[in-house]
Amino acid sequence: MRDPRQIAVVGVAGYSGLELARILLRHPALQTPVFYVRDANGTKCLSERFPQFRGWGEAPLRLLSVEAITSSGAGIAFLATPHEASAELAPPLLQAGLRVVDLSGAFRFRGAETFTSWYKLPAPHAEWLSEAAYGIPELYCEEIAAARLVANPGCYATSVILALRPLTDAGWIAPNTSVVCDCKSGASGAGKDPRRDLHFVEVDQNFKAYGVFTHRHTPEILEHTGLSESQVVFSTHLLPLARGILSTIYVTLKQPRTVAEVEELFRRFYAGRPMVRIWPAGTLPELQHVAHTNFCDIGFALDSSGRRLVLVSCLDNLGKGAAGQAVQNLNHMLGIEEQTSLQ
Amino acid sequence: MRDPRQIAVVGVAGYSGLELARILLRHPALQTPVFYVRDANGTKCLSERFPQFRGWGEAPLRLLSVEAITSSGAGIAFLATPHEASAELAPPLLQAGLRVVDLSGAFRFRGAETFTSWYKLPAPHAEWLSEAAYGIPELYCEEIAAARLVANPGCYATSVILALRPLTDAGWIAPNTSVVCDCKSGASGAGKDPRRDLHFVEVDQNFKAYGVFTHRHTPEILEHTGLSESQVVFSTHLLPLARGILSTIYVTLKQPRTVAEVEELFRRFYAGRPMVRIWPAGTLPELQHVAHTNFCDIGFALDSSGRRLVLVSCLDNLGKGAAGQAVQNLNHMLGIEEQTSLQ
Amino acid sequence: MRDPRQIAVVGVAGYSGLELARILLRHPALQTPVFYVRDANGTKCLSERFPQFRGWGEAPLRLLSVEAITSSGAGIAFLATPHEASAELAPPLLQAGLRVVDLSGAFRFRGAETFTSWYKLPAPHAEWLSEAAYGIPELYCEEIAAARLVANPGCYATSVILALRPLTDAGWIAPNTSVVCDCKSGASGAGKDPRRDLHFVEVDQNFKAYGVFTHRHTPEILEHTGLSESQVVFSTHLLPLARGILSTIYVTLKQPRTVAEVEELFRRFYAGRPMVRIWPAGTLPELQHVAHTNFCDIGFALDSSGRRLVLVSCLDNLGKGAAGQAVQNLNHMLGIEEQTSLQ
Amino acid sequence: MRDPRQIAVVGVAGYSGLELARILLRHPALQTPVFYVRDANGTKCLSERFPQFRGWGEAPLRLLSVEAITSSGAGIAFLATPHEASAELAPPLLQAGLRVVDLSGAFRFRGAETFTSWYKLPAPHAEWLSEAAYGIPELYCEEIAAARLVANPGCYATSVILALRPLTDAGWIAPNTSVVCDCKSGASGAGKDPRRDLHFVEVDQNFKAYGVFTHRHTPEILEHTGLSESQVVFSTHLLPLARGILSTIYVTLKQPRTVAEVEELFRRFYAGRPMVRIWPAGTLPELQHVAHTNFCDIGFALDSSGRRLVLVSCLDNLGKGAAGQAVQNLNHMLGIEEQTSLQ
Repeated sequence: MRDPRQIAVVGVAGYSGLELARILLRHPALQTPVFYVRDANGTKCLSERFPQFRGWGEAPLRLLSVEAITSSGAGIAFLATPHEASAELAPPLLQAGLRVVDLSGAFRFRGAETFTSWYKLPAPHAEWLSEAAYGIPELYCEEIAAARLVANPGCYATSVILALRPLTDAGWIAPNTSVVCDCKSGASGAGKDPRRDLHFVEVDQNFKAYGVFTHRHTPEILEHTGLSESQVVFSTHLLPLARGILSTIYVTLKQPRTVAEVEELFRRFYAGRPMVRIWPAGTLPELQHVAHTNFCDIGFALDSSGRRLVLVSCLDNLGKGAAGQAVQNLNHMLGIEEQTSLQ
Repeated sequence: MRDPRQIAVVGVAGYSGLELARILLRHPALQTPVFYVRDANGTKCLSERFPQFRGWGEAPLRLLSVEAITSSGAGIAFLATPHEASAELAPPLLQAGLRVVDLSGAFRFRGAETFTSWYKLPAPHAEWLSEAAYGIPELYCEEIAAARLVANPGCYATSVILALRPLTDAGWIAPNTSVVCDCKSGASGAGKDPRRDLHFVEVDQNFKAYGVFTHRHTPEILEHTGLSESQVVFSTHLLPLARGILSTIYVTLKQPRTVAEVEELFRRFYAGRPMVRIWPAGTLPELQHVAHTNFCDIGFALDSSGRRLVLVSCLDNLGKGAAGQAVQNLNHMLGIEEQTSLQ
Repeated sequence: MRDPRQIAVVGVAGYSGLELARILLRHPALQTPVFYVRDANGTKCLSERFPQFRGWGEAPLRLLSVEAITSSGAGIAFLATPHEASAELAPPLLQAGLRVVDLSGAFRFRGAETFTSWYKLPAPHAEWLSEAAYGIPELYCEEIAAARLVANPGCYATSVILALRPLTDAGWIAPNTSVVCDCKSGASGAGKDPRRDLHFVEVDQNFKAYGVFTHRHTPEILEHTGLSESQVVFSTHLLPLARGILSTIYVTLKQPRTVAEVEELFRRFYAGRPMVRIWPAGTLPELQHVAHTNFCDIGFALDSSGRRLVLVSCLDNLGKGAAGQAVQNLNHMLGIEEQTSLQ
Repeated sequence: MRDPRQIAVVGVAGYSGLELARILLRHPALQTPVFYVRDANGTKCLSERFPQFRGWGEAPLRLLSVEAITSSGAGIAFLATPHEASAELAPPLLQAGLRVVDLSGAFRFRGAETFTSWYKLPAPHAEWLSEAAYGIPELYCEEIAAARLVANPGCYATSVILALRPLTDAGWIAPNTSVVCDCKSGASGAGKDPRRDLHFVEVDQNFKAYGVFTHRHTPEILEHTGLSESQVVFSTHLLPLARGILSTIYVTLKQPRTVAEVEELFRRFYAGRPMVRIWPAGTLPELQHVAHTNFCDIGFALDSSGRRLVLVSCLDNLGKGAAGQAVQNLNHMLGIEEQTSLQ
């Protein structure tokens, strides 16, 4: 019999995995999670390998294998692994009766072709793609609560989709106008593997654009806003800081609106959704307001014509953009308060 | 008799002024400049006040007064002062026969109302506004060479105008589409006066938008691209680094173009203009390529439809965005090689 | 009747005050604290003034006066104020029956002359100086538990004293040899008031020594290690980061020791003290291991002679160096688990 | 016939090599240098590979081989290579009549055992070790001017040796007291190869000690100050910035001195040596004063007893700590002004 309060975490070596460990170890409704790694180097507990956990975050570290996880009593597995690994690990875990929250891109699309065209890989079996719930709880909390498999969204995609959905649902965006999403992320979003372009000296004092028109989070944005590829321009930039995404989004409205109307639209849409905070008209959120939290903060500016709207959406790419949102999804799967362990 | 190789510099205490000092002190065609400050604190030379100049940058430091400057033999004055001070200082210096390069916004607009409406101050006398050359030598080198008064452009404005001019001159931009200018600057652009929002702890690890629809560089962009206020969306952001501006600019083209056509347009436009470097299609410039230089680097990405164009324009806000460009203007005023002392 | 679970916090506008708010708002044994400020600017709750608290940290913000605090039922007051303000506020609060945890230097010394000679001010009344407990709970938990007034130690002093005390208590340090304390701190330790030398551009990419032989934390180190002023050399440096202190301390031992003996001495000294973590011989703690925590991590290296010992002591200057330690002291004053709300 | 103004540079891919390129390309007394790399990736000139050189730093890039260099007319070779490569490349180049400036540790010691014991490798042939001049021109300019082989010193070693030599030459240091050298360096000193511990996220917001008692620059310090291994304690730390070394050095003097005496000792020692700048008593140099320069700035503080002296020595690890000093050595080898191209 699987125990939903018993958690298996795969991929603790990366930044999302470490953040997941930090949150799960303090989670009051869970047993101590078990962490699985490809190479334990002889270590048997989390704090031996990651000294920041010494003295408060003791938890077992085990060699990763599907069998090791399925033969434990774990009811839910988190996969903080690259999409190739997730595509391989999720199906047998699901078949063995675990529920899975996957932080990679492997199960984020209904259509196999979308995956294949953006990830240049055969897609996971269609059965799983169609079953996966897309893990933004502010939009899909019922599907998530019932899901066996939750595809945790991309960090950029979360910040853009949460900012655009009130507008697309209300039908406010003028057709045939560009929706420009100019997104900036800290370096932890690019992972922990040493790379020349993520070397300290290359990032510090530097700033650059990358992935213009080509970023893999594009199809998530299209699918969950209903905007067409020809309407969305999505670009990403690398900030010289560790944590945080700030997206500046430029929209043309169908008809003129007042700032009060815009604020009201957003407030109503996110009423009862405490992890999305709408900023009062005339103020804009900054990365420092969301770093180390699970909040997504959204503010806006409207020009004097009332038709050109600029949205600013901020979150912590390891919080609401990855591990935090994954635990928020877990809370819905467990049927408990969604903010548990996230404040 | 005024000597054009004898330079007076006002405002060395700010970051632009210090950068100006660094460049002018190495300039092979000039005599040692004289630096004027409001309060010398008893110091008599530059290196007493700014120890980084010790041992190589000895130059006189004098108490600022119009008379002190006009009674010297100086032929050219640089004003690295706030616009209020520049508006006051420039006219008497010009009347005394000096030529002036002003780094503030005081003389950047032909129309007095434009100045007044964006700066909330009475404009300088119309005579000076109409006489001032706008100091982007790649666009206006002849006016600059002949000018008595050069208005050195805003840092953001320089990066945006240089990126857009090939397109607006060629008439490539689709009418009635937004031109989105999402600009990011390092903190030295905001000046040297201590301010709560520029305190180290407030900027480090932070990133924010500011001045959306309200930045004072807006009218410069409109005036020198010919685009209308309703077409341009201009926003600015504060990067957690000291030097550099990167502008990401989103344009919709009238008709589909190939990357080769776009690259060719830019290369032709800036042929013989060594301080603007066009990046080959498929590559994008980064801040690290222009920091501590007088270059403006421009790259681009074109989507598969050939109509949506993203430009990336980088420069050092103290170099090509302020002091470097000011010296480039000086070189044109002196009739010498424009790169002198700028490499 | 005063309620010890009802807390008044003075000085929330500074970095230590904000960190205190973050910790106290999550503290399970307390009522919602009340925050007092000199100038409320018309705001009535914490999150109106500090938007990062929106949605989770609602608490009242009131205008500061001694009467406002004493007329509330608060049992304990935290003073996150400059020493001048603390010296003035603490006595009337104590006389009204509150217990006080003061984060400034006002009550850190037994001797009034010590205060006067280092702070150039008349000392608070001797009655309070002699009553104040010095708030390092690993050394003085019984005095703290019983104290009416706790003087929370300096951030540098905490890192140095915790590293040296096992050695000085054991009498291991060779007499007449220098004990060199080379300490480095992040910029939040210097406070939140805008200052030219704490302007972003002046700190970023910079590093400097300051306060050599003159830092006000010196007498705390002398008093709580028993070392003489002629033996200790204490210097401080400003790191280009926001949070954290790393002290590198150089000691000559009376007689040769093995690494096992050194590690054993430290482990025994801090047995049962979970907030001080001793690193295994051959490893050294880094700032990233203690940032945003209340830990003080201590590691060491011993040369081949066994007599020259280098200690590395790390903590978060706002955590164990200020607000975290203040709450650890509070927990002792309340007689509850010292780590409550500190993990 | 070899031309001393024709320069071959090996190892331009690293940070020291790039800095060398920047300085040499502007050097007025040289022809355009030729750069040799192990793998040209089809590129034929410097700016194709390193876009920051576009438009001003055109120079040939060639595939590295000893023959390619010796068959050119180059008179002097710079080796900005790891010590293994330098040990292999230098002898055949010297035998072919080139003079060599080596930036690695391969030829820094007279004694082969010293090299072997610190570098764990067989030493280069004794003939070359004994012939190499140690490249600190302020101390050994005559040997350097005449040398066929110059061993450019370690960056940390330069900062420490320049600070200590006035004291050791004057015999001022008390015998049997520790000389503590607490040194901090920016990350460019650790090279350009991607490494987990130099990944942006691991260095940013972090600070750590490393190499305590074990750093390879130790024997250079001992050899050129005459201090014994038992007297010097040398530790190194990694700063979260790209460029610069600041060494804080703690010395006990044999007899009490005044600040005037100390300042006078240093000023006299470095009279006529413009690249070492002595700071007036009461002031201390900071990294920002030397970044991007070839200066070593030295300041000091003396305690009230006049016997405990703290020195602060700053330089740019890629400037005076590597490439800048290498060019300073070149200038002496060419018999020209030592500051040429270094301001």
